[in-house]
Amino acid sequence: MTVHVGVVGVGMIGQDHIRRLTRVLSGVDVVAVSDVDGERARAVADGLRDVAVHATGEQLVADDRVDAVVVCSWGETHEQYVLAAIAAGKPVFCEKPLATTQDACRRILAAETAAGRRLVQVGYMRRYDADYRALRAVVQGGSIGLPLLMHCTHRNAGVPAHYVAEMMVSDTAVHEIDMVRWMFGEEIVAAQVLTPRRSRNGGELRDPLVLLLEMESGILVDVEISVNIRYGYDIRGEVVGEHGTVALGDHGGVVVSVAGRRSWPVPGDWRERFGRAFDAEFQDWLSALAAGAPRGPSSWDGVAATAVAEACLAALRSGERTAVALPDRPEFYGPHP
Amino acid sequence: MTVHVGVVGVGMIGQDHIRRLTRVLSGVDVVAVSDVDGERARAVADGLRDVAVHATGEQLVADDRVDAVVVCSWGETHEQYVLAAIAAGKPVFCEKPLATTQDACRRILAAETAAGRRLVQVGYMRRYDADYRALRAVVQGGSIGLPLLMHCTHRNAGVPAHYVAEMMVSDTAVHEIDMVRWMFGEEIVAAQVLTPRRSRNGGELRDPLVLLLEMESGILVDVEISVNIRYGYDIRGEVVGEHGTVALGDHGGVVVSVAGRRSWPVPGDWRERFGRAFDAEFQDWLSALAAGAPRGPSSWDGVAATAVAEACLAALRSGERTAVALPDRPEFYGPHP
Amino acid sequence: MTVHVGVVGVGMIGQDHIRRLTRVLSGVDVVAVSDVDGERARAVADGLRDVAVHATGEQLVADDRVDAVVVCSWGETHEQYVLAAIAAGKPVFCEKPLATTQDACRRILAAETAAGRRLVQVGYMRRYDADYRALRAVVQGGSIGLPLLMHCTHRNAGVPAHYVAEMMVSDTAVHEIDMVRWMFGEEIVAAQVLTPRRSRNGGELRDPLVLLLEMESGILVDVEISVNIRYGYDIRGEVVGEHGTVALGDHGGVVVSVAGRRSWPVPGDWRERFGRAFDAEFQDWLSALAAGAPRGPSSWDGVAATAVAEACLAALRSGERTAVALPDRPEFYGPHP
Amino acid sequence: MTVHVGVVGVGMIGQDHIRRLTRVLSGVDVVAVSDVDGERARAVADGLRDVAVHATGEQLVADDRVDAVVVCSWGETHEQYVLAAIAAGKPVFCEKPLATTQDACRRILAAETAAGRRLVQVGYMRRYDADYRALRAVVQGGSIGLPLLMHCTHRNAGVPAHYVAEMMVSDTAVHEIDMVRWMFGEEIVAAQVLTPRRSRNGGELRDPLVLLLEMESGILVDVEISVNIRYGYDIRGEVVGEHGTVALGDHGGVVVSVAGRRSWPVPGDWRERFGRAFDAEFQDWLSALAAGAPRGPSSWDGVAATAVAEACLAALRSGERTAVALPDRPEFYGPHP
Repeated sequence: MTVHVGVVGVGMIGQDHIRRLTRVLSGVDVVAVSDVDGERARAVADGLRDVAVHATGEQLVADDRVDAVVVCSWGETHEQYVLAAIAAGKPVFCEKPLATTQDACRRILAAETAAGRRLVQVGYMRRYDADYRALRAVVQGGSIGLPLLMHCTHRNAGVPAHYVAEMMVSDTAVHEIDMVRWMFGEEIVAAQVLTPRRSRNGGELRDPLVLLLEMESGILVDVEISVNIRYGYDIRGEVVGEHGTVALGDHGGVVVSVAGRRSWPVPGDWRERFGRAFDAEFQDWLSALAAGAPRGPSSWDGVAATAVAEACLAALRSGERTAVALPDRPEFYGPHP
Repeated sequence: MTVHVGVVGVGMIGQDHIRRLTRVLSGVDVVAVSDVDGERARAVADGLRDVAVHATGEQLVADDRVDAVVVCSWGETHEQYVLAAIAAGKPVFCEKPLATTQDACRRILAAETAAGRRLVQVGYMRRYDADYRALRAVVQGGSIGLPLLMHCTHRNAGVPAHYVAEMMVSDTAVHEIDMVRWMFGEEIVAAQVLTPRRSRNGGELRDPLVLLLEMESGILVDVEISVNIRYGYDIRGEVVGEHGTVALGDHGGVVVSVAGRRSWPVPGDWRERFGRAFDAEFQDWLSALAAGAPRGPSSWDGVAATAVAEACLAALRSGERTAVALPDRPEFYGPHP
Repeated sequence: MTVHVGVVGVGMIGQDHIRRLTRVLSGVDVVAVSDVDGERARAVADGLRDVAVHATGEQLVADDRVDAVVVCSWGETHEQYVLAAIAAGKPVFCEKPLATTQDACRRILAAETAAGRRLVQVGYMRRYDADYRALRAVVQGGSIGLPLLMHCTHRNAGVPAHYVAEMMVSDTAVHEIDMVRWMFGEEIVAAQVLTPRRSRNGGELRDPLVLLLEMESGILVDVEISVNIRYGYDIRGEVVGEHGTVALGDHGGVVVSVAGRRSWPVPGDWRERFGRAFDAEFQDWLSALAAGAPRGPSSWDGVAATAVAEACLAALRSGERTAVALPDRPEFYGPHP
Repeated sequence: MTVHVGVVGVGMIGQDHIRRLTRVLSGVDVVAVSDVDGERARAVADGLRDVAVHATGEQLVADDRVDAVVVCSWGETHEQYVLAAIAAGKPVFCEKPLATTQDACRRILAAETAAGRRLVQVGYMRRYDADYRALRAVVQGGSIGLPLLMHCTHRNAGVPAHYVAEMMVSDTAVHEIDMVRWMFGEEIVAAQVLTPRRSRNGGELRDPLVLLLEMESGILVDVEISVNIRYGYDIRGEVVGEHGTVALGDHGGVVVSVAGRRSWPVPGDWRERFGRAFDAEFQDWLSALAAGAPRGPSSWDGVAATAVAEACLAALRSGERTAVALPDRPEFYGPHP
């Protein structure tokens, strides 16, 4: 069975997902696209075969050929397309964030709950990365005892010109925010944000930041966010348990010994580091749809991540430890995985 | 465009390739299968949709729905199915070895040359492994100077009951034999095989072996073959150049620190280590077919690998350095890549 | 020239230093010992040749044969012996801490300053560890840009029965406290202490702790202190600069591949990890004495470390960020190295 | 008790050992030196205190103040000084090789045997390297099963102008020759030497070489010798057993992440890599003398290493596998350790 997908928003990430859906993965076809920039939508469609171009995301959702929707548009517009898909009873994969405000997130939650079945999946791809999965398997296996701490670093070589201060939390750290909720199966209850000495590579940005996230059980997570560190894209994590630790391996390639040093390459960007996780994420989404409903990160995960990000931003402004304001988890979403 | 593939031979490797073609890769469908064990063929077809079962590989090749053939049958039968595909003018992907004797290999070479276009690709998947490709890129980049030596190890945790002595060369070491030809773009001219102290894990096998391969330019390759080493599947390689070296990285997963030691897993078998290389190999084959003709390991590479394997087996019997008997490379196959 | 040393306090650390001074290092002899437990002092002296046993540390200091004093007694008694040595004009190597209170530290500072020449060295051996020195050389070399952050972990397999809560700061973290002052050549100005989920291995202890240390320039240091982690003694550190990082290497021994895993040993305790740093520390002290005066960690460093430790303990009690109360650095001690 | 040592030959290695004996190690004093270049001997003595300069090594041996002799002179002269020390009944530490010919080696063996007690130790320092010792402990512990193979690499960044072809075996590979005899507790019975493509960095030298050493039990050792590889001094070894392997760790220092790569330094030369092994070697020699007699590499080890080196040189000339001509091990030297 082939799933026919419509893609709303065909910028960089949208085009990368289209490439994935049409040239990498099995059992899927892209049949429609839309974009705020109609010319861009047309150009993308021209590179494919038999793809409709719609003037709006809502029209794309309404297209009978479209079985499922992938939303890659600008974050501010996520809410409207996700709600449209829910209204049409079509599964929707929404790139993170689910929406940019708590209110918008909760409207989506309410709509999906009212629809009575899971339709929404949010694009937190780290849950599909082989190393993070192995890390979680060790944590759950118990060989290190109960988890007590997690140390994370999230480093980007650089960021685009439109990258502003809040994005260090809402675009960058949000991956760790979702990941630790999934890693430990519990919510983040409070956050603090520290501002070390500022890097001159970051211009006006407060770069780096250190986030301190407290989880329900008391697990403490520290996250270094450095977004102009130049040397590469470096994602690390170590969970410290009562009698052992488990850490992400070093994603090295071949080892060169020249000129007095032994070295290997650091990934250049997130595509290099997480390309396979994106593939696995979509393949799992497609398999789950074939089986009836998505099973990946849910609207609730989108709500929770947004709530933590808001707490972090408040903590950054105030310099104080800030509690996360999170509603009760709807029964609809079942227990924490 | 979807390539419709027929698979001859649906044992373990055949089933793995069918899984790959139907559930992992894009742009391909399996439409027919055959197997010496008709019941097995039927069972495999039942797990798929709309797949014809043929009594013989030749009938499968003749099926009009079949655009291209994948041969995964027992090595002795490769020749007949490959020749049938060439006769039918259909592209054929043949698992290694191309054929089990020099004569058979040369008949294939002659048939393909006579057909006047490349139809055959042989399944040497290491050429598609990201690490081997990175190794080759460093060698070709020149930063380590001219290559002088290569050290290889090829270790299997264990081998199946039907594994006999010659298979250490023809099934196991043959991967290194093809790989170094591709790595250095030149032929192997002579071989010697050493028999160290015998492992008690290997029963009657002379396990381990050390192969010494001399290349045209004088590059010396040593290959440790250990096929009952229990601890895992461990593939390593280091090219030593005039002023530096480059080595395969360690394919580690997450790093666990418990009970006085820091450790990570060694792959358990070739599927774990080379699964992605197989995916890439077939994806490239499909893309190449779409563009007109295969571009991976050719019949010539199959001939050359078989010739070197035969020299190694003669060297193992005699204990002496043995020259490789190789005909001139047909112009048809162009220069060494 | 041979330096004749008297050792005050011959418990575990004292005996280890005596072994070092008599059996490892060149140019030194132990000529006198004292201990609160006279029998123990006698037993230790019996294992050596020609060593006087004194009833008190003060008598040992007064012994004409004693050129220089090493103080390894219980922390509460450090002040009196160091002051005695200063009064006698004899160089004194004092195991950390210099003294257990700010007032005591400052009395030592005043006495040494009044004496008009450096006589005191405090036993912060990390400054002599080859890896920490290499780390500092990279930081000072500038290749990673200005340092912004440092991540540290300090893990002990276990702690002795008499180990109480404050010792996590004053005995354990104090090594990182001194090290970062030396690493960055500046003072720590404020501290915060976080208490993650508690390890059941630690009984009543709040174990682990996370210290957050702010330095004058804004560099932020985080230090994980885990003292019952069982798997080994694991000391790590990474300095994050504007465009690169530098980290302590992994002090691995030989690498074993068995039973599906590749592994190496983690050090068992501080003697294994820092044995050579202790050797280098004393060798440098002896060389410096031969050249006229000690040049290692000074009374001022002892004062500063104690002040930071006190701030950390206050921060632990209050849960708040706490400023470090430090007097001005006396000119006598020159600029920060 | 202080051992008073006389050093014959004060070139580079002699001066390094004098530094070690006077400034690093405990329980030893250098009291006399001699050198073929009397002026150099005088200059070295001037940098020390109370050191006699002798016109010849024989006079030095005869000096009553000299308890034990260290021979660091040119290889051709080793025999005469070692024989002089044996004749005088004084322990003698002789830098490798014991002597440059089999005949000379055997005269020493005969003299020592006649003297009736061990007086000679040969300077094979790898036996004192912590990593080689750990490797051997794992091999002997049995966790990898019986050893079957050992892979070694011995790479020098460069060699001095006087370095000639035979030295690749007799000066360089001889360290592996002794090490594997000690590692496995058995003799090498045959050798083969392969000459890969020649490095242009080595001028007239056949560089690199690959030695293949067969041991009594059938263990096969391959040794890559590269002496102009520029990038550093790189010593590696992996023992392959029946169900596992053990390898020397990577002697890395701190790890730097800059400009797209993660790297650490390779040692520059043997002093950096084996400095501590030299220290341990001499400390053990001194302790053993205090206990009565040397216990390190013996005259027999010197004889055996020289015999294997000669077989290798013959094998290099002939291109053939060459048996090692070794007399029976004298009972005097006890069983293989």
